[in-house]
Formats: sequence, C-alpha cells, structure tokens
Amino acid sequence: MRNFVLRNFQCLSFLSRKALFRSILKNHVRNVGFGLERKHKSYSTLNQDPKAASVYTHKNAEVSFTADKYLNLKRNPNFSELTQEDITFFQSVLPSNNIIVGNEDDLLPYNIDWMRKYRGKSKLIVRPKTTKQISEILKYCNDRRLAVVPQGGNTGLVGGGVPVFDEIVISTNNLNKIRSFDHLSGSLICDGGCILENLDNYLAEKGFMMPLDLGAKGSCQIGGNVATNAGGLRLLRYGSLHGSVLGLEVVLPDGTVLDNLVTLRKDNTGYDIKQLFIGSEGTLGIIAGVSIQTPRKPKAVNVVLLGSNSFEKVQETFIRAKDELTEILSAFEFWDANSVKLIQAHIVQGSKFPLDTNYPFYILIEVSGSNKVHNDEKLSSFLENLLENQIVGDGVVAQDETQAKVIWAIREGIPEACNKAGSVYKYDLSMPLECMYKLVEDLRRKLMDAGVYGKDLPINNVIGFGHIGDGNLHLNVSAQNYTPEITALIEPWIYEWTEKHNGSISAEHGLGLMKAEYLRYSKSSSMINIMKKIKKELDPNGIMNPYKFLPD
Amino acid sequence: MRNFVLRNFQCLSFLSRKALFRSILKNHVRNVGFGLERKHKSYSTLNQDPKAASVYTHKNAEVSFTADKYLNLKRNPNFSELTQEDITFFQSVLPSNNIIVGNEDDLLPYNIDWMRKYRGKSKLIVRPKTTKQISEILKYCNDRRLAVVPQGGNTGLVGGGVPVFDEIVISTNNLNKIRSFDHLSGSLICDGGCILENLDNYLAEKGFMMPLDLGAKGSCQIGGNVATNAGGLRLLRYGSLHGSVLGLEVVLPDGTVLDNLVTLRKDNTGYDIKQLFIGSEGTLGIIAGVSIQTPRKPKAVNVVLLGSNSFEKVQETFIRAKDELTEILSAFEFWDANSVKLIQAHIVQGSKFPLDTNYPFYILIEVSGSNKVHNDEKLSSFLENLLENQIVGDGVVAQDETQAKVIWAIREGIPEACNKAGSVYKYDLSMPLECMYKLVEDLRRKLMDAGVYGKDLPINNVIGFGHIGDGNLHLNVSAQNYTPEITALIEPWIYEWTEKHNGSISAEHGLGLMKAEYLRYSKSSSMINIMKKIKKELDPNGIMNPYKFLPD
Repeated sequence: MRNFVLRNFQCLSFLSRKALFRSILKNHVRNVGFGLERKHKSYSTLNQDPKAASVYTHKNAEVSFTADKYLNLKRNPNFSELTQEDITFFQSVLPSNNIIVGNEDDLLPYNIDWMRKYRGKSKLIVRPKTTKQISEILKYCNDRRLAVVPQGGNTGLVGGGVPVFDEIVISTNNLNKIRSFDHLSGSLICDGGCILENLDNYLAEKGFMMPLDLGAKGSCQIGGNVATNAGGLRLLRYGSLHGSVLGLEVVLPDGTVLDNLVTLRKDNTGYDIKQLFIGSEGTLGIIAGVSIQTPRKPKAVNVVLLGSNSFEKVQETFIRAKDELTEILSAFEFWDANSVKLIQAHIVQGSKFPLDTNYPFYILIEVSGSNKVHNDEKLSSFLENLLENQIVGDGVVAQDETQAKVIWAIREGIPEACNKAGSVYKYDLSMPLECMYKLVEDLRRKLMDAGVYGKDLPINNVIGFGHIGDGNLHLNVSAQNYTPEITALIEPWIYEWTEKHNGSISAEHGLGLMKAEYLRYSKSSSMINIMKKIKKELDPNGIMNPYKFLPD
Repeated sequence: MRNFVLRNFQCLSFLSRKALFRSILKNHVRNVGFGLERKHKSYSTLNQDPKAASVYTHKNAEVSFTADKYLNLKRNPNFSELTQEDITFFQSVLPSNNIIVGNEDDLLPYNIDWMRKYRGKSKLIVRPKTTKQISEILKYCNDRRLAVVPQGGNTGLVGGGVPVFDEIVISTNNLNKIRSFDHLSGSLICDGGCILENLDNYLAEKGFMMPLDLGAKGSCQIGGNVATNAGGLRLLRYGSLHGSVLGLEVVLPDGTVLDNLVTLRKDNTGYDIKQLFIGSEGTLGIIAGVSIQTPRKPKAVNVVLLGSNSFEKVQETFIRAKDELTEILSAFEFWDANSVKLIQAHIVQGSKFPLDTNYPFYILIEVSGSNKVHNDEKLSSFLENLLENQIVGDGVVAQDETQAKVIWAIREGIPEACNKAGSVYKYDLSMPLECMYKLVEDLRRKLMDAGVYGKDLPINNVIGFGHIGDGNLHLNVSAQNYTPEITALIEPWIYEWTEKHNGSISAEHGLGLMKAEYLRYSKSSSMINIMKKIKKELDPNGIMNPYKFLPD
C-alpha cells in the first residue's frame, strides 16, 4: 500500500523487519503449520509407496484402538466378516495395486486419523478409480452386509473418516480427474478425490478460485469437503457449500449412481436431493463427482493485523468492516492474548510479535477485490476511522504478499502451537457473536474453581480464536494429559452452555465419532428423528460409516 | 456519475430527456408492471374486506376450473370430504374472521392464481395466526385425511399455490410478524407470511437488505419464497436461498413443529434437513418461520443499458463484467429486439427507446457497492473497454436513481407487454449460456416451418429475455389464443431440447401443477425415486398439496 500513512499504524517494511519474521515464515505456511502439512503429505506418499511407510508406522503403532477407548461401542453383529471370497471379488473389480490387504503397515495409514486420536482395525482398503468401480464395490458390500468407511484425504478432526472396527475403507485417492471447466459460467466438474489445493491451482491459471479454503487444503479432497460441508476461511465472502455446490454424482449403498452433475445455477425441479449429501459425512453414499460454482480470483488482496482492548471492540470493528469494506471483506479472524503466548512459546521463540504492545485480542482482516487502488482506499479510510474513534489500539498493514502470509501464519499457527503445548481438547462451536468469548471466560473460571487450571496444574491454557465473520469459535484447552476427570469437567458442560446460548456444538468440523452422542444439544428430537428416517431410507442395512454421526 | 465521458455513450440527462421517459415511468414500477401489482394488492385487500371483492369476482368467475382443463387429474378418493363437524373443529381453533367458508365470492381469490390460469374448488380457507394453530390444523387434517394447499402471496406461475379440487387452503397471510433482527450478524427471523417487500423496507432502515428480489415482491411472502426456492434478480450476487436461509420453523403434516430457527452461519450437526423444504412447494410441510442471512444494503447503485449486435457479444460482455466489475456486479440481464418491439407496442406507445439505434440484443448491467466513486471508476473503465473493443454498439448510463428505475422498468415491463399482446406460453429454463439463445431461434424456426408463426398467424411473437448471470432464459410465446395444437407443437419439444442441452425445465418458477409430469426431463428416475421416498416418509397420507410437484 504505497504512501499509506496512519498515525499509529506501523507500515510493515519487509526489508527492515525481515529477521523478525524469518522464524515465523520458517515455521509456518499459509495454510497450516509445516508439521501438520508434512504429516498430511506423508500419508499420500505412504499410499503410493508402502516401503516408505516404515518410519511412520512405528509411531502409528503406538496409537491405541478406538474400540479400546470407547468401551460403549460394540461391533454390530449384523455386519459380515471379511472372507477370502470377498477379497477375490474385489480383486475382480480392481487391479491389484488398488487393493491393500493383509500387510498391517500398509493398512495403518488408513486406519489412523491424522491427529493420531482414532484407530480402526480395517483389514481391507479398496481404492477405486471410477464411479462404476465404486458402484460395484458398494453393491457387493451392501448385499453381503459388509460395513464400509469412505475416506478422502483423511484430514477430519472428529474421527469420521477412519474405521472403528473392521469396516472396509473405500479410499477416493484414485478419483482425481478434473472433468471439465466452463470459463463462461465458472462451473467446475471434477472427481470427488481431487485435492482442494490442486483444484485451486488449476483454477488460478484461469483466473478463478475455489470458493472454499482451509488449513488442510494440501491433502483434503473436494468430495470429503462436500461430505463434511467444510467451512473454513472464505465462507464469510463466498458462502457455504450448500450454496456453491451445483451438482453431485453420488453412489448409494445399493450401487445406484445418482447422476446430478449439473452446472446450472438455478434448477427448481423437485427436492434438492444433493443437499442431503452435503454434510452427511459418508453415511448416505460416496461422492464420486462434484460440480461447483467458482468465483473470480481477486486481482488484489491485502491483510491487516489489529490489536484490540476488548471483545466488545472486536465486535465493533466487525460491524464497521461489514459497513465500510462490505463487498471487499474476505476474512475477519480473531484470537486472544493467550493464543499469542502459545505462539511465542512454541512456534517463534524469541521473536518479536509484529505489534509492539500486548492486547487482549487480535484481529486479522483480509480484503480482496478487482482493483488494488480502490481496495487500498477503502481499507485506509476504514483504518483511519477505527483509530480516530479509538476502536483499535494499533495495527500493521501487510506491504506485500509475503507479509500478508506472515500475518496469516500467526493466525494459522495457533492450533499447532496448542498441539505443541500439550494434550489438546479441541472444541469447534458456533453461536451468536456477542456471547462468543464469554464461553472462554466461563470455562476458565470453571476450571480455576475446580483447582485444575494454572501454572503446574493439569490444565495450562485455555485459548479462544476463530472466524468472527461466521460466529465460529475454536476453543482449545491445553492440558498435561488427556484424563477422564478433565473430560468430565468440560463435557457435556460446554455443550450445555452452547445449547443454552442457541449455538451449535459443531460449527464446521462435523459430528463424526466424537460428537454423535451429543447431537441432541444442537438438534431437537424431531429433527434427529427425520435424520434417522432418511438414513434408514437411503442406507437400510446401515453399512455406510457405522457407529458415527447419529446417536443410537 | 460526475465527469463521466464516453465517446459513444449517451449520458442520460434526466432533465432533458424527461418527457421521453415519462410514459415509461408512468406505466412501470421497479418491481412489476402496475397492472400486475394492482392485481396482487387487490387480492390482499380482498382477503381483508370481502365486500370489495365483488368487482373482481365477476371477472374471476370466468376462469375455467383446472379440473375441467386437466382431464387426466382425478380427485383422490382416499381424501375425506369436508363435513360440518370438520368446520366446527376449525372454528374451535381459529377466530371466525380467520375462516372463510360457504361464500363463493370470498373463496374465489384463494381458488384462482393471479395469472387466472388455474382454478380450484376449495370450500374452506383457514388463516392461522400462530405456528401452534397451523400445527393443530395440520394434525387434524392428517388424521382426517383432508387434503390441504399451503398458500402464501399466491404469486406463483405454475399453479402450485391454488387447489385443484376441494383441498383446504391454509393461507399464511396472518403470519406476518418480524420476530427478531441481529444487526451484528445480519440475521433476520420472521414469520413465513411476511411480505418480501415489507421485510426489505424494514431492513433498509437498518442498512441491510433481503438477499433476494423479484417482481412479485409487493405480494409474495418469504415462506412462499423459501418453499419455491425463489431466484430472481439478486441471485447472481447473493446466491440462492439454499445458501442464505439459516434456519426454518416447519410444521409437518402430522402437526410436529420442526424448530430449527437458528441464526448460525455454520452448523454441521447432522443432515441439513431444512434444505429439503427449500423448493418443496408446500408438499412436505408449512414454513411458519424463517431465519435468513441478510447482506448490507449497498450505498451506491448504478445501472447501464447497452445495445449488442450478437448473442456472442452478449456473452463476451458478461465475461468482461465478471472480470472487471467482479465484486460490484449485482445484475446482468438481457432481452432481444422482439421484446423491445412488444414493449414499444404495448407499454410505451409512441415513445422513443433510450438508445437511438436498434440492436438485436440489449443488456442491463447493475453495479452496487459501498463506494460510489470506486463503482463509477470501475464501470467507466469497463464501458470504455467494451467500446474500444467494439463489443457493444452503444449504451446509456443512468444519472440518478430515477433513471436507473427507468432502465429496470424496460426489463421488467417485458412480461407485461407480452401478456398484453395475447395469450402467452411462458417457459422458464436454465442451461449453459452458450446455447441459451439458440433455443429461441430453433423454436422460431420450428414454428415458422409449421406455418403458425408470423403476421396474422396464430403465433405473433417469440421472445427471449432473462438473467444471463444465472443462465436463466425466460422464453415467451405470444399467441392469439391457447390451443392444444400450439401446445403440442411446443411441448414436450422444448423440454426435450432443454434436456439435450443439459438444462433445467424449471430454473426458478418451480414445478407446481404445470411441470410435474415433465420432471423426467431434468431429473433421473433414481433422483425421482428418492424424492418420492422422502415425500412418503414426511407426508405418508399425501395430504400436502396433492396432484402437483412429483409425477404419479
């Protein structure tokens, strides 16, 4: 932003502050901490090259089985057990390199989620390349009552994409073709297994972008994104997948292929069946193809980091951003002072934070649009108003793309910093904005009153951060260890609190295994009743991703 | 637009051209032709004051019964017939002024759609004021097997909102309270019977707007908008209701109230059941309450009218508009030369069209955003590029809100002009943009070849207009009279053509009675099969809006 002068705002000069940011840049990337990114990538590699797996399987073998941790879960005896005859059938459908069977090391990456929190006991992984193969596999499994787990990039956070017992994993890794792109309408049709980042790169060359962006973009697959109704960083601007997905190709448990890969923005012909699969977490069918509306890639993007003295001021900043930046506002994120302490302790040790003073809250605002000069003028006027009215204390504006990435890296380094600090209890909640941070404060007080929160105590930190623009709070509790006592202090209290404040117990992560039994805190029994009817109607044998999503 | 100079562009000076536009302004309003508007209003008035009905009922009485025109439709004998005991029950639930029974004149406005094309034979209208009353009414009807038709503003175009036989009409006219508005998140909660324009006016005072806009806004109700997944003029910018509706309160046929009136932008807890009701056209339940995400009202809006020499150039203009106007583009409409002839013949006789030269195609572009100077600069640069590259021939830019309304009035006067020209066969289709206008040309050729299209022939005009931004074509055929021969020439040919080009036979009007039997042209048998399962599951007795929506 040339000639951009604001009294209190420091214009980050990348050259002079390079050293300061080097360590941040070294440890972070735009989308997720390098550590996580590496783990993701390694899974992909493992799938291709079983020999490379040995280094990782050693560590993976330490992860305990889900079935040993969730003692209330029992294998459904209605499901058949895998036989040699079954394997022979799958071998008739798929070439041998697309079937993994027998070798524990090769099976392991598909049995364990990337958080290494859940571990199943699947004995067979099938990796179809075509919709027809998925159809043949599912029809067979349905007829034989063999339970299955659809698995995309295996980047989920609630244990939804890995087996619990011996469910067959149907991996969509091999479904990775872009089928068509229409530059006139911006509609993209691709296989469900295409990696989000690959799609975004493909579109970038054509001046378009994916309407969603999330930390796991380097590994997560569009079919999995749709199946989990992934939210992420661009929802504020481009809306949810319920609005941007135009059509789906879904294989039902009985092998029926629902072909609804239309590219139409308007289509009022009957119930919008595809919506049922958006957010169904693999419990109704497998998403083999996706048609999605993609927006133009903005020609200019800028990012600003602000320090704020109260959560009320954060909200006021948001109202003004909506009012003054309106059509160019593309992200509005926040985090608290405790998050910064974690970042400083575990990610950028010894480095100075971009803002000189400490604030209880920090705000990241991203603007993007078709004209850099116009964006900068709007942003400049907006920031001046904030300062004049003492709504924020201080701030920095990125001077180029690299600096913008640095500011984003702070926000996106928080989960990683938290992971490094200890065992993390992760909660992903949405609620009306005005009460969002009260939950963090109430939980801190509760844990202090219980005598477990503080220096050298079982819980060393409780942090709040997330997407202000979507009312989506990520609340992380950093503990020395996972213990039943701590769990019992937090749950179901945190869900009850959320229910009382008209919130959702899962804003964007989904239900998976982790939250299935807590669904009642966000949905009435009548709603759950209809969900169960739909599940029964589409998957009468219950073979699709069992033990998860819906309560018994 | 101050200091806005373009070589070929005429800057409309309202003062000097006042006389020219006066007649257009006189005959049009922003949202719909005055004639239609009056009809809508009169229905509302009629509902309040039965005495005022006499003038209209005289004309309405001439409309023939749907049952006499659609001879394949037979009253379902499983449905009970209304008894005095039933009426006594409804009188116990509702005050007497919310029940209409017996008087034919009073029943008539609810039995006839506003196009005066469909006419039912209902003997009872109930007008509940609360969700609880709807629940009691529906439960009773379900137990007694009394068929019902939910009716909102009665502005539908496919006969979905009026009875066919003696179905009881459940009108939502009395459900008209705004329940809450959160200026922080922009979420509005209101009764399903709130009139769209009233909601928009309410929000305008707070600096917000409804994310949808359509011709019937003065009469249509938000519950009906949701039930029909109304598209309209703002979809290009703000997306469909599948994205902007946050939650619904729906009464199921058995009286169950599905309470899902959340105001959360992110909520991944289970299947997104509310989506099923968006576009269900009253066949699954009654929408008693709506929670919707509302965007900021733009501070500056401008409109431009362009003349284009080919449909290819129209498409090129659209690509450039997406590329250069991107985040401020809020409408991109088109119409053909034949549409203008109709406008000139029937709406603004003797008046000069704003552009001096005739073009085969016309384009309306609306831009809106938070900063007038920025909008104007983007628009100016965009228009200069169009002229320099000879992509458009000529154009005018509105100089103020009144002129903007005049340009909009031309676009929105087309359906009315067509109605005045004769009996109109209306088609509402969506398809890939590149083949959109080919359908109009192919149909003209087909009708010419059949010897029915031309001066003094049965068909006097075939026009194409619509929403380029959404790939949504409105194709109107203006005939001397409705005849089975003409119908047979057009249908199902037009649906087959649309199917062949991967289009939808109903972009935004819905299926209703008109298109139920043609659903197969847009949806596979597997999709229709699932729709039927869902219908059966939620409305096992089939009492909700029978004879429509799904084929037998």
